[in-house]
Amino acid sequence: MSKNLTKRNEDYSKWYNELVIKADLAENSGVRGCMVIKPYGFAIWEKIQAELDRMFKETGHQNAYFPLFIPKSYFSKEASHVDGFAKECAVVTHYRLKNDKDGKIIVDEDAKLEEELIVRPTSETIIWDTYRKWVQSYRDLPLLINQWANVVRWEMRTRLFLRTAEFLWQEGHTAHATEQEALIEAEKMQGVYADFAENFMAMPVIKGVKTESERFAGALETYAIEALMQDGKALQAGTSHFLGQNFAKAFDVKFTSKEGKQEYVWATSWGVSTRLMGALVMTHSDDKGLVLPPKLAPIQVVIVPIYKGEEQLNLISEKVQPIIDKLRAKGISVKFDNRDTHKPGWKFAEYELKGVPLRIAIGPRDIENDTVELARRDTLTKEIVQQEDLVSIIEKLLAEIQESLFTKALAYRDSHITEVANFDEFKEVLETKGGFILAYWDGTAETEEKIKELTKATIRCIPNDTKNESGSCVFSGKPASVKVLFAKAY
Amino acid sequence: MSKNLTKRNEDYSKWYNELVIKADLAENSGVRGCMVIKPYGFAIWEKIQAELDRMFKETGHQNAYFPLFIPKSYFSKEASHVDGFAKECAVVTHYRLKNDKDGKIIVDEDAKLEEELIVRPTSETIIWDTYRKWVQSYRDLPLLINQWANVVRWEMRTRLFLRTAEFLWQEGHTAHATEQEALIEAEKMQGVYADFAENFMAMPVIKGVKTESERFAGALETYAIEALMQDGKALQAGTSHFLGQNFAKAFDVKFTSKEGKQEYVWATSWGVSTRLMGALVMTHSDDKGLVLPPKLAPIQVVIVPIYKGEEQLNLISEKVQPIIDKLRAKGISVKFDNRDTHKPGWKFAEYELKGVPLRIAIGPRDIENDTVELARRDTLTKEIVQQEDLVSIIEKLLAEIQESLFTKALAYRDSHITEVANFDEFKEVLETKGGFILAYWDGTAETEEKIKELTKATIRCIPNDTKNESGSCVFSGKPASVKVLFAKAY
Repeated sequence: MSKNLTKRNEDYSKWYNELVIKADLAENSGVRGCMVIKPYGFAIWEKIQAELDRMFKETGHQNAYFPLFIPKSYFSKEASHVDGFAKECAVVTHYRLKNDKDGKIIVDEDAKLEEELIVRPTSETIIWDTYRKWVQSYRDLPLLINQWANVVRWEMRTRLFLRTAEFLWQEGHTAHATEQEALIEAEKMQGVYADFAENFMAMPVIKGVKTESERFAGALETYAIEALMQDGKALQAGTSHFLGQNFAKAFDVKFTSKEGKQEYVWATSWGVSTRLMGALVMTHSDDKGLVLPPKLAPIQVVIVPIYKGEEQLNLISEKVQPIIDKLRAKGISVKFDNRDTHKPGWKFAEYELKGVPLRIAIGPRDIENDTVELARRDTLTKEIVQQEDLVSIIEKLLAEIQESLFTKALAYRDSHITEVANFDEFKEVLETKGGFILAYWDGTAETEEKIKELTKATIRCIPNDTKNESGSCVFSGKPASVKVLFAKAY
Repeated sequence: MSKNLTKRNEDYSKWYNELVIKADLAENSGVRGCMVIKPYGFAIWEKIQAELDRMFKETGHQNAYFPLFIPKSYFSKEASHVDGFAKECAVVTHYRLKNDKDGKIIVDEDAKLEEELIVRPTSETIIWDTYRKWVQSYRDLPLLINQWANVVRWEMRTRLFLRTAEFLWQEGHTAHATEQEALIEAEKMQGVYADFAENFMAMPVIKGVKTESERFAGALETYAIEALMQDGKALQAGTSHFLGQNFAKAFDVKFTSKEGKQEYVWATSWGVSTRLMGALVMTHSDDKGLVLPPKLAPIQVVIVPIYKGEEQLNLISEKVQPIIDKLRAKGISVKFDNRDTHKPGWKFAEYELKGVPLRIAIGPRDIENDTVELARRDTLTKEIVQQEDLVSIIEKLLAEIQESLFTKALAYRDSHITEVANFDEFKEVLETKGGFILAYWDGTAETEEKIKELTKATIRCIPNDTKNESGSCVFSGKPASVKVLFAKAY
């Protein structure tokens, strides 16, 4: 397969699709809308999981596991939830196959389920059905639980990582004695997500709340983090929901308070998914391939030997081994690619495509001079470095690259937040520059809907740092008390 | 809920079921046959996962993720596989629900899938359908891939961890250029499983191969590790399969060899599941609750303060904090249970139930004497220890407990391998003593089947260390060249 990618400014969407496949992140499977996450892509996801899992545990959460299947009737118990989720989903109706008289395998109609099972699109219902048994007293609260799981939503148009029928995610589900505690939890997890996005993915995000029409089905408030991709479209990277007492009431989860009263429990839920992989690709990568922040790169440093014959390779290997040992001792992941099946030029292109942050090349002249050539993936710059300085330079550079990717993405993001005063400007910015548009909104779902119809832009969030000012709505001209962020979004 | 368990010698099966629930490992869900793995149980599973994952990576494997759903037609491609797996399984037939005219939620008959999807019972078919695209040349081999996933097998009689409709597992799927390499891989992974079982679970296992009738559907050879539970029943704890070229031929996976010839790929697959949790419980636990090997215990040391009033508690906390810090610095997990909602006696019983290997109790007299009371869960013995010696004693004891659990289980297992010469002895040993029975077998499926019918005992394995001797079959009296291990099994 050719390594040449479509250029971003030719066709961003095609560039993304090609890159995900060529960099061995994922591919489509024989099952409609379901992807195969390939080892290299999965290694990045494992790094994402490990960091998030650590952060969840440090904030007092524990992991558990709940069933894949949810009885159909569970969904009916929370009215807005069923409309939002249960309808486009995989339905299990039978539990057996059999051979027909020609030996063909068919569904056994005698093995029809009394009640259909839904493959979980999200687990609030099955979890709150369980929490009823776990919560009796205020002593059982808070319940701070997370699960890593696969979920299925029957999307009609799918794209690798961004929108797939099956995806991997984590879903936190917490139960609290008071409204205040649940609100604090929902905001805290928004903060954890923002911290992870910025400090590990090097992806700046805006924290805000969703408007009513963009809220999670069953939530009273949805806290989101919104990122901006290089094509000027926004991407919702994580959400944290304050669910009030909706699920507690639907599933009758009550507790005895300190004062001896029976009260309904307060709830939150929050999740991020393999969609983050798409966000990661679209935030940093370029026309040569992936650009990965060092903290999430499965291989942080690759070493490519340049040699003729076994003798030269042996000489290089000898020089390189102590460097590898020192880097590994510092927790830096290194690959020494000494395969003789591929030429150095091929390897250079391969590791550029795969976004390895630092590449070391070492040949016979370097052996003579005790040097190596060190190349940065993000800037595509090279320098000759003395072998004795290499380890400390690499340590410094990895931190610098992590920082620099964030700074660059932040500069792009900040230069793509445009405040507009009227709807003509709104449309013009959207068509030409893209990015986030900050504008007054009159607070009605009607205006929100009309803007979406006319421009495909939606309200991404009401930013946390918005000030209460007064102005007039960018669309209706009516009095407005809040500025919100619009954008076209993934 | 009362903490008193049914005693093992009264009703072993009831003891197990109660213990799994009372120790907060798992419980049944509202979905038939599907369990909820509770945080404490899941924390043990996470430790199992982490160690196995490390061992898989050290032996050159990478993780990936393949779809949950498998098109029905994929199963038909490997004849023995479909008989073994595809029949008792969850079948997805529709992808949408709708409201009927009364507002009730029903399956939308217009959203019927053209081809039904099977919720994976195991992933050979979907993975080999993918490998066809990944393998072209000998350079692409070996392919050494593992996935951690949920699978569904529609079991009619289920028991927590031991047999559930949905369970969690890992499944390795490897592709090789030669038969020899695939055989080595299958045996290697049996070795990894045995190593893990013995050195982390402290559970002795016998390595052997399965007879034809007990093999995985689609395998040419199944390598298994077999453990013995305290009730004298065997438990298959892990299997590794040599699949020959069956799946390569079914899914047309060929490669160009070094010599330029087109050849079919050789395959293995191997897996362990949350069933290991059941094995862990039944190998070590006693009438007071769980007994956990320190290497898999989520809490290795619990500290229970014995105090009256806040002042005493503060004094104890001050003394205890440096001990906690020192233990944590050594990677030992410690919980200081200073809750004032429960009495020390309740806490003692609770941590015995949960199998925490070491318990420290510290009261006012200990403060005066610079001592603590240190109790071992496995032996239920206590000693008074000087605080200054505590950390080194704990380190030593954790290793000793790990070792001692294995030794005890091994002694039990070894004393429950009984060699018999005739079928009367066979039946008597099975009825009275239980355990493994070593006997000559004539090698026919007919004999194997008849013994199973008459006694419920199956051939657990042909042990790796069996010698080629000759004798006469314990059942048929016919000439036999191999001794095999029989047992009743979970």
